[in-house]
Amino acid sequence: MNFCKKCGEKVAQEIPENDTRLRYVCATCTTIHYENPNIVAGVLPLIMDTDGVEKVLMCRRAIEPRYGLWTLPAGFMENGESVEEAATRESDEEANLKLGKLRLYTVMSLPHISQVYMIFIGQAVNDFSPGIESLETRLFDESEIPWDEIAFPVMTKTLQCYFTDRKTSVENNHEDFPVHNLVHQAPSRRS
Amino acid sequence: MNFCKKCGEKVAQEIPENDTRLRYVCATCTTIHYENPNIVAGVLPLIMDTDGVEKVLMCRRAIEPRYGLWTLPAGFMENGESVEEAATRESDEEANLKLGKLRLYTVMSLPHISQVYMIFIGQAVNDFSPGIESLETRLFDESEIPWDEIAFPVMTKTLQCYFTDRKTSVENNHEDFPVHNLVHQAPSRRS
Repeated sequence: MNFCKKCGEKVAQEIPENDTRLRYVCATCTTIHYENPNIVAGVLPLIMDTDGVEKVLMCRRAIEPRYGLWTLPAGFMENGESVEEAATRESDEEANLKLGKLRLYTVMSLPHISQVYMIFIGQAVNDFSPGIESLETRLFDESEIPWDEIAFPVMTKTLQCYFTDRKTSVENNHEDFPVHNLVHQAPSRRS
Repeated sequence: MNFCKKCGEKVAQEIPENDTRLRYVCATCTTIHYENPNIVAGVLPLIMDTDGVEKVLMCRRAIEPRYGLWTLPAGFMENGESVEEAATRESDEEANLKLGKLRLYTVMSLPHISQVYMIFIGQAVNDFSPGIESLETRLFDESEIPWDEIAFPVMTKTLQCYFTDRKTSVENNHEDFPVHNLVHQAPSRRS
């Protein structure tokens, strides 16, 4: 940030009175510009295939970052919507997918990029097809998941939670799965 | 928003290519300024009193908005922290409180003000006292909660969830409580 979005004058970083953090402050109009984490809302969509096996729907990205890699439908939550509405909208946009009842499943903080992923779990209630941001949409069982071609570590982690919970859940029903609150730290860089 | 925070020129609202929403866009440097919901992180702190009764710690606000009303420790999540770290920091700032293991408890979307409250539940492990943003900190059992003097509806709702879950939980232990994902709509205005 270089300029005040209210009055257009130059901003500078300083710690405001009664605060403990550096903020961008406008000396001209005194506006303090706070910057806060963003929510990425998404879904782990489950679809029963014709053999009665529950599979996961994934999308292959048609946009950067991570063009060509696989992900779960997800994107930035917008002003004016609930987290669940954001997740539902992203599923529709990326996979033309309508979903039944959703349950919050993973909440993952990524402090190094100031994002919080909130992924719901739920059954799809219609067929699916690639939306404008997807090259391809496909169902995967655990053995078929393209683990080496997943776009984001939080999606890998959410899938791992799901396959683990499916094995340990007595009812084998995602209605009983716990909500996972996790932190994903920045990967350490190799020298 | 009136001016571009990158180059300082005037911005105008338009729907960018491949988008569906109005954004503030800078015609000079082409920056699109996205605005997204904020997270408010907080805690429902539980403390066993000397009679073995589990009580809730609340803070009376020393700041606007809602000066003088009661709330649970909570505040805006900052860049660079996890949701749980934000909740822990707010408890420390507002009630000088250290907490044991936290569990995510309520996730509440407020679409009308583009906020998402995420409240954890956990036992306090030390004594408490008002921080700089609190006039007073006090323990309440259900019968003592100042229901008519609570600062924010999401805090009322979180407390209602807790007292209901405490009655219906077999173990009477918050480790077993479900995570509540809720939406709080704008109150309708009376004419």
